[in-house]
Amino acid sequence: MLPPYETVNWSPDGLRLRLLDQRRLPTEELYIDVATLDELVDAIRTLAVRGAPAIGVAAAMGLAVLATPHSTLNDIVRLAESIAQSRPTAVNLRWALDRMLARAQHTTQPELMRALRDEATQIRDNDRDMCDAIGKHGAPFIAAGSQILTHCNAGALATAGIGTALAPMYVAHAQGTPFRVFADETRPLLQGARLTAWELQRAGIDVSVLPDSAAASLLASGNISAVFVGADRIAANGDVANKVGTYAVALAAQAHGVPLYVCAPGSTFDRNTATGADIVIEHRDRDEIARAGSARVLPDHVPVHNPAFDVTPAKLVTSYITDRGLLQSPFPA
Amino acid sequence: MLPPYETVNWSPDGLRLRLLDQRRLPTEELYIDVATLDELVDAIRTLAVRGAPAIGVAAAMGLAVLATPHSTLNDIVRLAESIAQSRPTAVNLRWALDRMLARAQHTTQPELMRALRDEATQIRDNDRDMCDAIGKHGAPFIAAGSQILTHCNAGALATAGIGTALAPMYVAHAQGTPFRVFADETRPLLQGARLTAWELQRAGIDVSVLPDSAAASLLASGNISAVFVGADRIAANGDVANKVGTYAVALAAQAHGVPLYVCAPGSTFDRNTATGADIVIEHRDRDEIARAGSARVLPDHVPVHNPAFDVTPAKLVTSYITDRGLLQSPFPA
Repeated sequence: MLPPYETVNWSPDGLRLRLLDQRRLPTEELYIDVATLDELVDAIRTLAVRGAPAIGVAAAMGLAVLATPHSTLNDIVRLAESIAQSRPTAVNLRWALDRMLARAQHTTQPELMRALRDEATQIRDNDRDMCDAIGKHGAPFIAAGSQILTHCNAGALATAGIGTALAPMYVAHAQGTPFRVFADETRPLLQGARLTAWELQRAGIDVSVLPDSAAASLLASGNISAVFVGADRIAANGDVANKVGTYAVALAAQAHGVPLYVCAPGSTFDRNTATGADIVIEHRDRDEIARAGSARVLPDHVPVHNPAFDVTPAKLVTSYITDRGLLQSPFPA
Repeated sequence: MLPPYETVNWSPDGLRLRLLDQRRLPTEELYIDVATLDELVDAIRTLAVRGAPAIGVAAAMGLAVLATPHSTLNDIVRLAESIAQSRPTAVNLRWALDRMLARAQHTTQPELMRALRDEATQIRDNDRDMCDAIGKHGAPFIAAGSQILTHCNAGALATAGIGTALAPMYVAHAQGTPFRVFADETRPLLQGARLTAWELQRAGIDVSVLPDSAAASLLASGNISAVFVGADRIAANGDVANKVGTYAVALAAQAHGVPLYVCAPGSTFDRNTATGADIVIEHRDRDEIARAGSARVLPDHVPVHNPAFDVTPAKLVTSYITDRGLLQSPFPA
């Protein structure tokens, strides 16, 4: 299944990387074609493309675009290193580039360009298949008449396919199931308002947006059937690192008996991280909190506490919906 | 105790109502003098003055300012009715105006103007005393080295004195207790970032601001000693209606054994409301969610769910800190 727009793909002439420019959403649906290293690094760094799977696909396809008939393996390694620096904490970015380099190491010119292109296309296709599989496994949890809550954007705009947390919604919608989605706006960067609302509306799915702080009383109202969220990393014990605010939603869901489904590819499960306590949380810029559009909303010199992620303990997760099927914690050691 | 600025008071010449214009905070500390009905209604409606106690004081003082030597009781009743319409759901606004009208009914010209002025001054002074009393009863819960979380603005900017939820902090600070405050930014109107951060910084109290969605993980960190919040209405069973998001904070506080103190004057306890389920929640405009400053952040036609308040069940409240002392639920019938 594919959405009616392309988050990340080859340009029609096949020579460049084409990205849906997410900095312009929801105001404009505009595409940019990336042909140079500077353009690629800038697109990733300034969030023209974001979402772990989409960044990985963009990095792989971007690397293939940058390779020339004269590129040596060393050139490719150096390019990959520069791309990796664009968002140093993004695990999928590093993973996709490593996969590209492994392929490059087993190839020599004149086959190198074609090999990189094949590998990037496979990474894109694997990502699409992963989304479809999550959608297929998750759709049965969306009954007719459901009202579903989600947080942040783990949708088509975060992948090369139909997303992770939103994939079950696309599949259920395609099957004709009527349901309604509530999307947390997701401060500070408002991915729920700007992106999730945009892509669900674009697909004809009924979506409303709420402040993150209104999710608890919405769950208390008894009107929500399930919560679907994505994951940035899942520890060996099932603890879930995801966009900050996920934990508050999980607590309220548990308090009111609403199931919480974490939707993520198998690659998000990190056996090298024992528990959520071992996950280092990235803290982001003061300006994300200090400004709203061009307006200053925080007094000068007042510091902020702006973690990008939080950790939801495994005991609050009803099921993990993965491309390989359903999982429940505790996981086998 | 009084803050080093005046949220609501007489102008220095005593002829007008002087308001700290909260629409300009935190960028500018600017005062407006109100002399006409239109100016008063506009100031209340556009949130130049906000916070239930401050609105009540402003309405009472404004009514006194509008009275002339020629005013009849009927004129005063009509003025009060027009003022009351500026924010129809504000309980304190109606309460303060009723108190002014009761006084007017027992007075005739030429004493009417002076009586209204006296009554308004008493309402202001009662409000200041109420704040001081809450501060005195609450300060012992702030130990040296505490880190305290608060939500929205229940401070000096919401009263004629030193606030409700923030009053214990002002008293503890005056007593030389060192502590630190974390203020939720409080979407959608950002009263925490714009107002609470401004007034605590102005008083020399260490304050940081966080997205509402980061409060749960902050409480999970073990670094927060207590949560202090205000209340818009407290039902007979102790359920608390307060700014949306209070309930999510209360759930996370309970999950991590952090005490939750609700600070409110005795007048906030409503014996005519049996439980939180009987409290009608006001829903506010789409534009509060759809725009950030001048930028559009929500796609056209996507609806919002924007409740102004939520209800925190009494069982999550550790103590009610009132001007009359401490209360614990369940309350005597």
